[in-house]
Amino acid sequence: MMNVPLTVGAMLERAEKYFPKKEVISRTSSRISRFTYKEIGQRTRRLASALETLGIAQGDRVGTLAWNHHRHLEVYFAAPGMGAVLHTINIRLSPEHITYIINHAEDKVLLIDEDLMPLIERIKDQLTTVKAFIIMTDKDELPNTNLTPVYSYEDLLKKADPGYEFASDIDENSAAGMCYTSATTGSPKGVVYSHRGIVLHSYAMALADTAALSETDRCMPVVPMFHANAWGLPFAATWLGTTQILPGPQFTPKLLAQLIETEKVTITAGVPTIWLGLLNELESGNYDTSSVRAVLCGGSAAPLGMIRAYETKYNMPFLHAYGMTETSPLVTLSRLKSYQTDLPEEEKLHVRAKQGLLVPGLEMKVVGANGEVAWDGEEMGELLIRGPWIADSYYNDDRSEEAFKDGWLHTGDVVNVDEEGVIKIVDRTKDLIKSGGEWISSVDLENALMAHEAVFEASVVAIPHQEWQERPIACVVLKEGYQNTTKEDLLEFLKPQFAKWWLPDDIVFLEEIPKTSVGKFLKRALRDKVKNHLVK
Amino acid sequence: MMNVPLTVGAMLERAEKYFPKKEVISRTSSRISRFTYKEIGQRTRRLASALETLGIAQGDRVGTLAWNHHRHLEVYFAAPGMGAVLHTINIRLSPEHITYIINHAEDKVLLIDEDLMPLIERIKDQLTTVKAFIIMTDKDELPNTNLTPVYSYEDLLKKADPGYEFASDIDENSAAGMCYTSATTGSPKGVVYSHRGIVLHSYAMALADTAALSETDRCMPVVPMFHANAWGLPFAATWLGTTQILPGPQFTPKLLAQLIETEKVTITAGVPTIWLGLLNELESGNYDTSSVRAVLCGGSAAPLGMIRAYETKYNMPFLHAYGMTETSPLVTLSRLKSYQTDLPEEEKLHVRAKQGLLVPGLEMKVVGANGEVAWDGEEMGELLIRGPWIADSYYNDDRSEEAFKDGWLHTGDVVNVDEEGVIKIVDRTKDLIKSGGEWISSVDLENALMAHEAVFEASVVAIPHQEWQERPIACVVLKEGYQNTTKEDLLEFLKPQFAKWWLPDDIVFLEEIPKTSVGKFLKRALRDKVKNHLVK
Repeated sequence: MMNVPLTVGAMLERAEKYFPKKEVISRTSSRISRFTYKEIGQRTRRLASALETLGIAQGDRVGTLAWNHHRHLEVYFAAPGMGAVLHTINIRLSPEHITYIINHAEDKVLLIDEDLMPLIERIKDQLTTVKAFIIMTDKDELPNTNLTPVYSYEDLLKKADPGYEFASDIDENSAAGMCYTSATTGSPKGVVYSHRGIVLHSYAMALADTAALSETDRCMPVVPMFHANAWGLPFAATWLGTTQILPGPQFTPKLLAQLIETEKVTITAGVPTIWLGLLNELESGNYDTSSVRAVLCGGSAAPLGMIRAYETKYNMPFLHAYGMTETSPLVTLSRLKSYQTDLPEEEKLHVRAKQGLLVPGLEMKVVGANGEVAWDGEEMGELLIRGPWIADSYYNDDRSEEAFKDGWLHTGDVVNVDEEGVIKIVDRTKDLIKSGGEWISSVDLENALMAHEAVFEASVVAIPHQEWQERPIACVVLKEGYQNTTKEDLLEFLKPQFAKWWLPDDIVFLEEIPKTSVGKFLKRALRDKVKNHLVK
Repeated sequence: MMNVPLTVGAMLERAEKYFPKKEVISRTSSRISRFTYKEIGQRTRRLASALETLGIAQGDRVGTLAWNHHRHLEVYFAAPGMGAVLHTINIRLSPEHITYIINHAEDKVLLIDEDLMPLIERIKDQLTTVKAFIIMTDKDELPNTNLTPVYSYEDLLKKADPGYEFASDIDENSAAGMCYTSATTGSPKGVVYSHRGIVLHSYAMALADTAALSETDRCMPVVPMFHANAWGLPFAATWLGTTQILPGPQFTPKLLAQLIETEKVTITAGVPTIWLGLLNELESGNYDTSSVRAVLCGGSAAPLGMIRAYETKYNMPFLHAYGMTETSPLVTLSRLKSYQTDLPEEEKLHVRAKQGLLVPGLEMKVVGANGEVAWDGEEMGELLIRGPWIADSYYNDDRSEEAFKDGWLHTGDVVNVDEEGVIKIVDRTKDLIKSGGEWISSVDLENALMAHEAVFEASVVAIPHQEWQERPIACVVLKEGYQNTTKEDLLEFLKPQFAKWWLPDDIVFLEEIPKTSVGKFLKRALRDKVKNHLVK
């Protein structure tokens, strides 16, 4: 067979050639614009030509601090198309981490949304490798800034060559993209995406048995383009000639609902928080969402009740998926097998609320305390993944060995596997409670406690135990008006639901549970708080 | 990203792990059997283990002479799984060509259907590399044969290891399969399929925008497994856990119609001849074909009337595709773009009757007399293809240079391209008439002539011409009772349909048109017959 590399540039070329009239609808800070793929292609080539003029060469990192819009999409293809590396920077990280990331990746140029300029202005003096700043703005004038040298994106494009030819000598295993993921401790860790990985991941997104992304779709990624390439959707959608709706910087539930209605979105993608917000909006407003065929949901587990509400009240089918920055990200996707379609509705919902089945092209292993787990939907183990769009290390980082061992990515996610091979995330390895050689899921206990009418929040952590190694202890915040609830009440409530040895050794009532900046329970702080509580 | 190779063995492993209960329904000479993928997996591993015992090593060619059934499917995965090469032999070739192919590929072992044994018994003394013959039969006893050493497939499996592990050190660019294609002159030419090519081709078959092959399908390939891997369907279907219906040695229209009804086939694939036969059967019988969602049709152009009949009378959607042995084979597939769905029905049918749009992952170029053609649906040029599942040469064959030039496969097919990028085959390059620097399609003239009530058959060939280089001449066989039709009658009939310079310089009436063994016009013989007819 011909030795033709799989490259990102060829994906855009397909859209230019075969879908020149199809559109990208882009919401920026001031307007909604519509560009054809023919225009996007020319603008992308102009951008690549301008970057080359600025001195960007093959292998150089091109950083972006940007929302989901057409200019960001153009960088998605211009950088890899010219053999450079698209480095999407998570704007939600702390200034220290953003500084670290830019210096560690050695970004040569930064493309920055106008409203995100302050993030960089604050740290510009610590940036050691950046040679130029390009501001993405709808305005004709370059906004006031102390960044230098600074260029206007649109000005650069005007002067550049729309006939720029993408690099033809690209090794498919070379870097096309980069994204840093936060670590539990220390600096963020960089993941490098190859051309090959992005193309194969795009196939995996477009299979009839996965997200079935198609030319006929109108795809709105709400997941940010600075987060695991917006789950690879901009790449795959462009390749297929799919209409894209990029919702820009303000993606409030109201604006999303409006875009779904006016742009007749067929598939959209985001984390559960987004869908919780949208659900509230749908319940208060009056929107036509009948165009939607799939709400792709990942990042963390979607509550069953939310899935049920979307499907029964709004006829918007949910598509639950699992992945992480290290996995490009698609790993599993939850669809019923052909012979499961006759199950009772509620049972089907329970299957579909799990994280799903491994997509074609990857391998997985689930390893528990005693080796690979049984596929019984109960035994827990850590999920290990292998495949051509899975990272093999962190970029220039000696923490790689923790996660990458023997050719497998150790995800740190604890799952069970049912007899159909469908996985369900039950915990993070670091939060799991290892008691007497068996594993207890902190998440299962938390969910059970939070289903009690008196409980506002609950977090379950492990404390060291001489005999059992670790034992669970529950930290509970009671709802107002339920202050009389006792430890015994809650234990009684848990008893029928769990094996006896799963029950927490103690329940500690707190005023509040310490949280991370994105609202997750800060279990490390909690463990410190209760560690001397109960050592037997 | 991890350096994980794309391999054929991993495709079967996916079916074994995630779809062990799904079935392969196999029609052999004596019965219909049902095997789960779990069973197919174990039988395949037994086969690989048995082949190893017989001395087959990595890189060795494993020849098959077999119809579409479960045992052939097992060889499809056993040979590549162990690092050997599946060589499917076209049983319809002459004994001389079959001998050439087996010796040229250096097959070490042949797996032969019982009813095809005579093909090999006749030539066994000319085979220079074959060390063993394995007979695939439903019977308990090995049939009488003079082949030696000879083994029974089922006997070998009984004694072999169902836990055989597939090779883990396979280079994805190494050979997984081989197939020879007939040449216009001389011996057949060998095409080698790599593991990488087969996996990527399987993705291409399973996209929502192509054949959308899915786990939910019940797939019946009628195209033989000895012909371009049955268009790659057995590989893709196994990977996805699709139910397969393999129709075996007797695929009469009646048996196919019965299988469609009883096995609720959703997708089937074959050449137009098969579908013409099935159409007759459907019109005379009374079959329930409501399960069918796609009739995949390729190999040669399907007549518009047939497509219309299938869709309007039987509600069986046609899916027209183009490819060749050298291209794995999927190259284009005819689906409407999203904005074409509002076209009038007849116009849509005309679009869908073309060969369609290039599938994601390939590149094409159409080169005419004056370079790349305009996309106007008229200008003709030769179709050139490039991509990771396109052959880069013929196996050990100095005729490679004719077809593979500058990194492109020169298909020898002449096409036009409409403004949507959809191709339509209009001729073979060798049959095209090059007149005064312009091209004339022999096929278009033939089709126009055959639409005349008096014409039974028509074939148009080029004859040399001093001034115009070549000019068309039509050879016509009249229907009985129309012997009074004149050359002038036919030219008058053609005039309003073509530019003046397209009209044949002469029309020659013949008793019959010489044909190849498969019923195609033998234009070479025809050219010889008329070459001195008209040289100006």
